[in-house]
Amino acid sequence: MRPSGRAPDEMRAITIETGFTKHAEGSCLVSFGDTRVLCTASIEERIPPWLRGKGEGWVTGEYSMLPRSTHTRSSREAARGKQSGRTQEIQRLIGRSLRAVVDLKKLGERQITLDCDVIQADGGTRTASISGAWVALRLAVNGLIEAGSLTEDPITGQVAAISCGIFEGTPVLDLDYPEDSSAEADANFVLIEGGQIAEVQATAEGATYDEEGLLRLLRLARIGCDEIFAAQRDAVK
Amino acid sequence: MRPSGRAPDEMRAITIETGFTKHAEGSCLVSFGDTRVLCTASIEERIPPWLRGKGEGWVTGEYSMLPRSTHTRSSREAARGKQSGRTQEIQRLIGRSLRAVVDLKKLGERQITLDCDVIQADGGTRTASISGAWVALRLAVNGLIEAGSLTEDPITGQVAAISCGIFEGTPVLDLDYPEDSSAEADANFVLIEGGQIAEVQATAEGATYDEEGLLRLLRLARIGCDEIFAAQRDAVK
Amino acid sequence: MRPSGRAPDEMRAITIETGFTKHAEGSCLVSFGDTRVLCTASIEERIPPWLRGKGEGWVTGEYSMLPRSTHTRSSREAARGKQSGRTQEIQRLIGRSLRAVVDLKKLGERQITLDCDVIQADGGTRTASISGAWVALRLAVNGLIEAGSLTEDPITGQVAAISCGIFEGTPVLDLDYPEDSSAEADANFVLIEGGQIAEVQATAEGATYDEEGLLRLLRLARIGCDEIFAAQRDAVK
Amino acid sequence: MRPSGRAPDEMRAITIETGFTKHAEGSCLVSFGDTRVLCTASIEERIPPWLRGKGEGWVTGEYSMLPRSTHTRSSREAARGKQSGRTQEIQRLIGRSLRAVVDLKKLGERQITLDCDVIQADGGTRTASISGAWVALRLAVNGLIEAGSLTEDPITGQVAAISCGIFEGTPVLDLDYPEDSSAEADANFVLIEGGQIAEVQATAEGATYDEEGLLRLLRLARIGCDEIFAAQRDAVK
Amino acid sequence: MRPSGRAPDEMRAITIETGFTKHAEGSCLVSFGDTRVLCTASIEERIPPWLRGKGEGWVTGEYSMLPRSTHTRSSREAARGKQSGRTQEIQRLIGRSLRAVVDLKKLGERQITLDCDVIQADGGTRTASISGAWVALRLAVNGLIEAGSLTEDPITGQVAAISCGIFEGTPVLDLDYPEDSSAEADANFVLIEGGQIAEVQATAEGATYDEEGLLRLLRLARIGCDEIFAAQRDAVK
Amino acid sequence: MRPSGRAPDEMRAITIETGFTKHAEGSCLVSFGDTRVLCTASIEERIPPWLRGKGEGWVTGEYSMLPRSTHTRSSREAARGKQSGRTQEIQRLIGRSLRAVVDLKKLGERQITLDCDVIQADGGTRTASISGAWVALRLAVNGLIEAGSLTEDPITGQVAAISCGIFEGTPVLDLDYPEDSSAEADANFVLIEGGQIAEVQATAEGATYDEEGLLRLLRLARIGCDEIFAAQRDAVK
Repeated sequence: MRPSGRAPDEMRAITIETGFTKHAEGSCLVSFGDTRVLCTASIEERIPPWLRGKGEGWVTGEYSMLPRSTHTRSSREAARGKQSGRTQEIQRLIGRSLRAVVDLKKLGERQITLDCDVIQADGGTRTASISGAWVALRLAVNGLIEAGSLTEDPITGQVAAISCGIFEGTPVLDLDYPEDSSAEADANFVLIEGGQIAEVQATAEGATYDEEGLLRLLRLARIGCDEIFAAQRDAVK
Repeated sequence: MRPSGRAPDEMRAITIETGFTKHAEGSCLVSFGDTRVLCTASIEERIPPWLRGKGEGWVTGEYSMLPRSTHTRSSREAARGKQSGRTQEIQRLIGRSLRAVVDLKKLGERQITLDCDVIQADGGTRTASISGAWVALRLAVNGLIEAGSLTEDPITGQVAAISCGIFEGTPVLDLDYPEDSSAEADANFVLIEGGQIAEVQATAEGATYDEEGLLRLLRLARIGCDEIFAAQRDAVK
Repeated sequence: MRPSGRAPDEMRAITIETGFTKHAEGSCLVSFGDTRVLCTASIEERIPPWLRGKGEGWVTGEYSMLPRSTHTRSSREAARGKQSGRTQEIQRLIGRSLRAVVDLKKLGERQITLDCDVIQADGGTRTASISGAWVALRLAVNGLIEAGSLTEDPITGQVAAISCGIFEGTPVLDLDYPEDSSAEADANFVLIEGGQIAEVQATAEGATYDEEGLLRLLRLARIGCDEIFAAQRDAVK
Repeated sequence: MRPSGRAPDEMRAITIETGFTKHAEGSCLVSFGDTRVLCTASIEERIPPWLRGKGEGWVTGEYSMLPRSTHTRSSREAARGKQSGRTQEIQRLIGRSLRAVVDLKKLGERQITLDCDVIQADGGTRTASISGAWVALRLAVNGLIEAGSLTEDPITGQVAAISCGIFEGTPVLDLDYPEDSSAEADANFVLIEGGQIAEVQATAEGATYDEEGLLRLLRLARIGCDEIFAAQRDAVK
Repeated sequence: MRPSGRAPDEMRAITIETGFTKHAEGSCLVSFGDTRVLCTASIEERIPPWLRGKGEGWVTGEYSMLPRSTHTRSSREAARGKQSGRTQEIQRLIGRSLRAVVDLKKLGERQITLDCDVIQADGGTRTASISGAWVALRLAVNGLIEAGSLTEDPITGQVAAISCGIFEGTPVLDLDYPEDSSAEADANFVLIEGGQIAEVQATAEGATYDEEGLLRLLRLARIGCDEIFAAQRDAVK
Repeated sequence: MRPSGRAPDEMRAITIETGFTKHAEGSCLVSFGDTRVLCTASIEERIPPWLRGKGEGWVTGEYSMLPRSTHTRSSREAARGKQSGRTQEIQRLIGRSLRAVVDLKKLGERQITLDCDVIQADGGTRTASISGAWVALRLAVNGLIEAGSLTEDPITGQVAAISCGIFEGTPVLDLDYPEDSSAEADANFVLIEGGQIAEVQATAEGATYDEEGLLRLLRLARIGCDEIFAAQRDAVK
């Protein structure tokens, strides 16, 4: 039995509140149960130096946890003077995941930064970030299209992410913090609406799993992402 | 006339939503119009090294703006590797202001950190931070008292802060961003419930003002803080 | 009674030795009793990036304490790899204070940096820095006028600063270190020759004060600044 | 056809030269074709602070590329003052992978650091690092056993890693640089001798792949790792 | 007697293996006994900002020790976030020494960076670095000449370096680690083929020496450098 | 002819003003012509961690140039966030030089830090720093002896330093800035009163020199140091 009483293939409640902040070109507060992440999309009419002259745009992600988003307070990365390896790993993942559904040539010479700031953490912050960032991105790009700045839609599909893991021997979907902290294995899947896989990060610290285990987690991820895709579509309607 | 149509001595709407996050010992989302700051109070049963053995506690503040809390995106301080002078100045002010109403001996050997994270900025983020931090602190200390960890209340009173300034020649209360960015002079007042002054920071970049001008701003600040004190009391009831 | 035996409205001896270093366009060693600060003004024919194309100049300040300017040695900020919040707060104050008496358009597209390096500290280093920086600035601008690089004087008046505080219940002028370290309240005033106020920073850590107390400190500051204005005029004659 | 003329399931030549440096408790220079990594294992009789008193040891990894291990010179991370996100991601992966085959309780209160320094890069540096680090670790632990410092072997098995990817539509094993830089999808597998999976990192920047694609890459990885396991056994004999 | 059994004026075995890495324009692995340094020369068709428009090139050096090149592991400078004073001192010395034999005008507007990475340390790493860097530089410049990018040879001669010291009262040549760590005085000489001195760094921590002592060390250095010059010539043939 | 009109073996005027600051245990302002350095000695009753339990003390040096001590303003190292290689090289030299005349066992478990802050630079700042630091150290140790904290004098002699160089083909003593910036070769000598050599740093960037040249510079250095030794003795009388 899961600590939350959920069935193995049962997601936490998903809510996506769009327009959470007024300055960003796109924004939402995404919740997976008690995990809450503020995702904003900021459009800038400039590109990184290494892209100049290629006629392409760029999509990138940044991630941070508020110091007291967690059970005990963590020191602020700005005060420590550097971002942790974990933070950098997650923000690279967010950027790659979103770029998997953007045609950078169609985006034109502009950059969209997806800031994912964790307000409250209860497991699955990186996957909630990706799932919410897509909504913020979609809203920002809609704005560009409505303003006539883009004639073709550069977004090629939906992308969502979910964590799965093996908890007390059972594959379960959408780990919350009590599960995450004692799972034998833990995998994050980034999926494209329609069935393709954008990224798999399956880690077994201590334990390991076999091919069948990996496939069972992937199948759970598909169930979860279908639910997220629906929530994303509702949110941007 | 003020851009917002407010009277010179009229505050923006204040709302204080307590319990905004579940992990912190005290928290609130404070809004002054479109300025919104998440304030959390974190209790740690340890004190800074230089206080050891004095039988006293410590209260400190940290401050940050989310990258897209502002009109245009600012780079993340954690990514730049250091906190700006402005950030440090503000977090020092938050800490001093709250310590003005705490008896550190009564607090005992523990530290309370007040994290003020700006979700959306529209002028007055530092004064909203102080005003909200008091609520988070009050809630956290209430918890210590209820748990029997404290027998005497270390909080000696309420503290609140507000900005005033001279806008197009007229002293006005609670500057929003359009006023703040073109005010001739700008002052932040930190007041104690009952009338005492904890801190004045009055700055005239370009312009200057005389004694009478300073006093008129102080009188506006008293009007504003009385309204904040009432909102704080409602919030912690 | 004050530890130094001074009357409540009595300043320490002020001396301003101009031309203390030969390379700077303007320089002085300013002393308020045992507090000694080397102030230099450096003219550079370039402006910060964000000012380009506006036809204006810039005036900025930097501040540092030599490691053994204080009773016990402090570690060097360059060795620690960052400037403290206090240092940044002070150098921002120095820059704002001097800009209050400079017409940046008349200065033209050049930057003047006022470096204030504390040789020996005995309270009031930031106010001595501002008072001395004005002398260094005046000398540097005189040089530009004499060289024909400026046809109109961009300096609109004199600026000086002084600290006041409440020491053992009595408002006193020009705090030295023994007073500063035990004062109930402490305020720094930056005044313009002629009576206008450029900046007030009044802080009451622990204690607080009322409107009357603030005004009494301001009146003391006027007495002190008049003495500084005279010393500045003597120095640049 | 692959640029190197290899068959899709053909590895590059693997060589493992043990004892490459004399100071480390275990070391080897591992080559996968032109990719060469120096792996050293350093034993220290101390553990990280957060492990104290648990009776366990720790295994961790560090990774760096020499500035001119690549086609064009990269600036030195020590000179830039921080490690890149990529570096941190890789060294976290190295540590996790090796810990998957170590019983930390049996290791006792000591730390083994696996330094992987890339001498020459031609694709697959992180997987070569993991594969070589196991050899260095095995040699270092052998030394502890021979010296009588350990009575039970804390290493529970072999671990190896290999990259696979889809190159011009075909799944291929052990990508070299020309393949890596133009592959549609790229996956790193960390496998345990005997068939279990320790980690999968499958990324599709731009392209994506389906379940079948992922499984085909996993099967290639098994072929490659079997060859590496054999080379590791030869090396430590 | 020296710990190694060498005569006072006897060098360790020198080997220089050129072409050790394939990407660099010039490279070698230089060994002085158990001290082994990888030296690479990287040509970049750009120059530092302060050289622009002077029609000259630049030659610079960088130095690092692999974490486990030493008896006990040192922490990685990239992880600590800064290069030590020792590292910076050595890389400045490498750059100066090589520039002593390069006509920067003839080199043209390009920069050559000499990276010296210590694989294994047993005393004399800085002098081995300089001696090996010359070989890497020579090979890189030969490539420029062969490619027709240079019509005149900018290298004006050979440069080599060696350490000498006073060990148990006797002046000895080419200190190894056991000697270096207990020598009374220690001097590094950088000599030009033909007899000129490019640099002397003679340090006596604790002990001191007289003029005669300095000259005896210089004479030993000449013996050692003659041997290195021959090895360099062999290597680049 | 030298730009200053001095004879080749003629020093600039040396003045040493002791007691320049009141907080330091020892201090002086040392001038070599227009080069002026404030040297302070700070005693702390603690030692670096790596010396604990050895019954020895430590002497170390720090060095900095005020931003406008030079012809054009340099940015502040504290603002840049790190000390330059040049700064670190010089402060290491200052520490080594002073330790050459201190018996660390006799000093006992305390640390003396010699801060050398350049007020005005005109060539030879590092050698003036060493020469002045000895005076500050002597005064600080005298205080320890007078206070009865030391029964035996840990200072074994005098140490001084001077630069010499080859200027327009002629060996000259005590280079000022115009000479230093165009000298063909430049050497810093640290000598012990009585004739021993503590350190030689002879550098020829571009040019080189032979054995005879080195000896001629050393002879000039002896002349200069004798004059400094006399000035030091006068200062501490």
